[in-house]
Amino acid sequence: MKILVSNDDGIDSLGIQVLVETLKTIADVTVVAPLKEQSAMGHAITMKTPLRVIKYYKNGEFFGYAVDGTPADCVKMGIRNIMETPPNIVISGINHGSNTAVNTVYSGTVSAAREAAIMDVQAIAVSVTSHTATKFEYAAKICKLLAYKLLSEPLVRGTFLNVNVPDLDEKDVKGIVFTKQGKSKWDDIYEKRQDPYGRDYYWLTGNLVVSDVEPDTDQGAINNNYVSITPHHFDSTDYKTYEVIRNWKI
Amino acid sequence: MKILVSNDDGIDSLGIQVLVETLKTIADVTVVAPLKEQSAMGHAITMKTPLRVIKYYKNGEFFGYAVDGTPADCVKMGIRNIMETPPNIVISGINHGSNTAVNTVYSGTVSAAREAAIMDVQAIAVSVTSHTATKFEYAAKICKLLAYKLLSEPLVRGTFLNVNVPDLDEKDVKGIVFTKQGKSKWDDIYEKRQDPYGRDYYWLTGNLVVSDVEPDTDQGAINNNYVSITPHHFDSTDYKTYEVIRNWKI
Repeated sequence: MKILVSNDDGIDSLGIQVLVETLKTIADVTVVAPLKEQSAMGHAITMKTPLRVIKYYKNGEFFGYAVDGTPADCVKMGIRNIMETPPNIVISGINHGSNTAVNTVYSGTVSAAREAAIMDVQAIAVSVTSHTATKFEYAAKICKLLAYKLLSEPLVRGTFLNVNVPDLDEKDVKGIVFTKQGKSKWDDIYEKRQDPYGRDYYWLTGNLVVSDVEPDTDQGAINNNYVSITPHHFDSTDYKTYEVIRNWKI
Repeated sequence: MKILVSNDDGIDSLGIQVLVETLKTIADVTVVAPLKEQSAMGHAITMKTPLRVIKYYKNGEFFGYAVDGTPADCVKMGIRNIMETPPNIVISGINHGSNTAVNTVYSGTVSAAREAAIMDVQAIAVSVTSHTATKFEYAAKICKLLAYKLLSEPLVRGTFLNVNVPDLDEKDVKGIVFTKQGKSKWDDIYEKRQDPYGRDYYWLTGNLVVSDVEPDTDQGAINNNYVSITPHHFDSTDYKTYEVIRNWKI
C-alpha cells in the first residue's frame, strides 16, 4: 500500500509526525506537506506564482518534501510530480484542532483530502479536537484501520472521509460514529486596532457557536466524546433546492 | 433593497464595475472587494495577519471599500463591520471566466457567495465564461432579475446560486437553465523551470477536461450556450455514501 501524507499545520508539526510513524508500519509513505502553516487556507491553489519543493529532514533523517504552497498544492504536486505512480490513499493530518461543521469549508486539512478525491484517489482528513492536543496515537490508529477499509471497499469517485477524534485517551472515547456535516458556525468579531503609525487595522477573532446537538452530526458526535467520520464530496450542489427551483421563471 | 457586492478579480476589474452600475438602478449598493486579484483562493480566510480597509475611488468618485484579503474576508468584513445592517443579498462577480464543475471548489467568486450563505444572507456568484470577456451587461441584468426573485422567494439557509453566463450577446444565448455542478476537472501540469540562480521551480498549468455533456450540468449548459444557474450549499456531506457506510465496522 502506498500512502501520500499531507496536512495544513506544516511539515514540522507533531500531528503529521505521529501519523507518518504509524502509517510506516503498514505502507510505503510519501510526505508532501506545506513548508509553513496553512490553516484556514480553504481550497486555495497557487497559480500566479511558482512553487518550490524542498527536501525536509527531521532528526537528521529524510522526512518528506516541503512545498511553499497550500495543502491542495501539496496533494497536486505529490501525485503529479513527486510520486512515480499515484498513491492508493491520501491522508491529511493529523490536524491540531477539530474540523467540523462550517470549519470544513475553511480547513486546509479537509481541502487536501478533497483535492485527492477530485484526482480519483481515496482520501481521509483527520483531526484531533484540541489545538493544544499532544496525543495523536489513537487518531493515527483509526487512520490505519480506515486505510485498510478503503483499500477493500473504496468510496465512490469524488468522495472522501473527514475524521474528528476527541482529544482523549482511547479508553475514554465512547465509540466511532458515522455522521453528517453540522451547521455550527462562527460568531465573527473583527477587533479594531491601531498600528504604531496610528492607522487602523482589523483582526478576525470569534467563537464557534455550537448549534449541532444531534449525535449523527460531526460536531454533535465529538461533543459527546465519539469519533466522528463524515463522508464528503466535492460536489456541493443542493439537490433538494434544485428540484424546487428548476421550474422557476425569471 | 440593500446589496453587498464583492468579487475575486479585485475591486478594479471591469466585471464588478458593470455589475455595480446595473444594481444601483434597483438597490442601495455597498462594494467590499479585494484590493488585489484573488482568483483560485478558494474559501481561504485571513486569521494569522490583520486586514486593512481602504476607501477606493474610480474616476474621482467613491466606488467602495478595498480589503487586502480574500473574497470570503470581504464578505465577512462587509457584513460584520462596514454595513450598518446586513444586506438583503450578496452578489459576487461578475467574474472574468467560468466557474463551473470542479472550478467552484477553487473559485474565490463562489466562496464569497458561500460565505454569505453561511452568514444567512441570500447570495449569488456570477461569471461570464471567458477570461477575455468584455460584455457583462447581460450577466448584470440576470443578477437584477435574480435579486428580485430571491427577495420574494428566498432560498433555504446555507444555499446560494452559482450563475454562469455565456460570453455572447443576449440574442445569441439559447435560454436559462437550472443545473447541477458538473464533474469536469483539470489535467494539471507542473512546468519545471529554473530561476536565474539555477534552482528549480514549478508552475501550475493545465487544461479543463470537459466530461460533462448533460445539459442539466453547469458545464454542459454553458457549452451549449445556455445560462446556467446552480444551487449550492456549504454542506458538502455525501448523503448517499453516508447511508452506505453508516453500518461499516472498522
